[in-house]
Amino acid sequence: MSIRDFQNIGLVGAGLIGGAVAARLARVMPDVTLHVHDISAGNAAYVAERHPKARIATEVADLASCDAIFVATPVATIARQVVALLELPGCTALIIDTGSVKQAVVDAAENSHADASRFVPGHPLAGGISAGPGRSSGDIVTTRPFVLTPTEKTAPEALADARELLERLGATVSEMKPDAHDRALALGSHLPHLIAYALAGLGAEEPATLLPTSYRSIAAFAGSDPQMWADIFRTNGPELKAVLEEFKKRLDLIAAMADEPDPDPLLDSLSEAKDRIEALENDG
Amino acid sequence: MSIRDFQNIGLVGAGLIGGAVAARLARVMPDVTLHVHDISAGNAAYVAERHPKARIATEVADLASCDAIFVATPVATIARQVVALLELPGCTALIIDTGSVKQAVVDAAENSHADASRFVPGHPLAGGISAGPGRSSGDIVTTRPFVLTPTEKTAPEALADARELLERLGATVSEMKPDAHDRALALGSHLPHLIAYALAGLGAEEPATLLPTSYRSIAAFAGSDPQMWADIFRTNGPELKAVLEEFKKRLDLIAAMADEPDPDPLLDSLSEAKDRIEALENDG
Repeated sequence: MSIRDFQNIGLVGAGLIGGAVAARLARVMPDVTLHVHDISAGNAAYVAERHPKARIATEVADLASCDAIFVATPVATIARQVVALLELPGCTALIIDTGSVKQAVVDAAENSHADASRFVPGHPLAGGISAGPGRSSGDIVTTRPFVLTPTEKTAPEALADARELLERLGATVSEMKPDAHDRALALGSHLPHLIAYALAGLGAEEPATLLPTSYRSIAAFAGSDPQMWADIFRTNGPELKAVLEEFKKRLDLIAAMADEPDPDPLLDSLSEAKDRIEALENDG
Repeated sequence: MSIRDFQNIGLVGAGLIGGAVAARLARVMPDVTLHVHDISAGNAAYVAERHPKARIATEVADLASCDAIFVATPVATIARQVVALLELPGCTALIIDTGSVKQAVVDAAENSHADASRFVPGHPLAGGISAGPGRSSGDIVTTRPFVLTPTEKTAPEALADARELLERLGATVSEMKPDAHDRALALGSHLPHLIAYALAGLGAEEPATLLPTSYRSIAAFAGSDPQMWADIFRTNGPELKAVLEEFKKRLDLIAAMADEPDPDPLLDSLSEAKDRIEALENDG
């Protein structure tokens, strides 16, 4: 298993996640040259200024000679960027993306005319509601799980290189299938945000004093970037709708139990949910 | 407007809310004798021990000579307790309840054979997920809105007395109609908890690492007392189901917009929800 020698690393997308990757590269691999590309010159400059050996890459084509490239653009453009890099003449770089929906980018890469074997789909589970490099910290890489979703077309060497590089950056790497990832994130992240946006929309007519902690804590996730979440909902539509149906069924089930003369089924159901949440909190 | 002279105040239910009322009474009206009744002798003793002039009332009938009585039992028994006090021979006390669902207790009081004019339905918007007197603090009374929901049968003098007493305890008192209160709480508190219980139930099969902040923050409200929430869901069933239907429609609407070729409606909808949440956060 030959591990690549990383001398030049590219970054396409200098936002929250890209900024976090750059911060870790500056910290643990300060001799590597970082090539930063972003459609926002301000974002690119912000990240480049905080790295000891960074260069601004005006065009994606400027990254052709990199050893590895992180693609951390918004979900809506990530597939296009990955395909462009796979098709870039002369480029043999390991490509790792960081998008929060995986099947769509995998499909785009594998349906392109390029060899997708050097593409390793990934997703650091960043969570949170902030955006942009200014709020970014390397902690996103080191404290959250970094999921890789290789496919049959992913070369084992590329996967090993990606894992090695990410572990050098301090990430805890795990592997999943792309569709399993998208289902899990639909439940764990995308549905909760959909709930928040829906709940926030319902509260417009109520006086603020009658909207207590529970409402506010849940609806607060609607304070997240609308463009980012619109992209995620669109990109992971089928999985999101499937989990939404399950969620609505469960809401109806609980509401129906509240109508039954027998109080026990409702109490049992709520008690079971409480047990699950306590187990989750104890698990960490 | 004759304000009652409060020498003896009764408390039925020495839990989270009852404990908070008792704490405020001890602080600002230390010369008043507090008569504490709870089916849990431990709860009653806990609250009584923390008050300079408290007595344990073994039976509700022991409260007959009180000037005012707070009824702070769980929602499922509150209507029964209020009616029992209204029907208690010789009792002329002002009765204030603190239940989080108002129409059911109002209906029970007004459909009883007793004179309901000295009953003032109330609800301190306590929020939070704890229960029992041990976690209780007078802050619940002084920092959260205390809503009164008088009806046509409520005597103006009783309402004035209740307001006076609560304001002496440090509460910020407001008034609403019982059904408007129940609709507002269905949206602001009961639906958010129903969401939490449903979401907590869905996550059982997922690895904990794939359940990020958004899922955990929302589902955490399912850590609340199942008996209390079962009672609330059962007692406020019609209002809860009405707002649940609105919520499901909005979830479906957002999911449907994520399917449209035109990205603007979805983005507009999420942006509008974000604006509402930010306005709410700025309102306080």
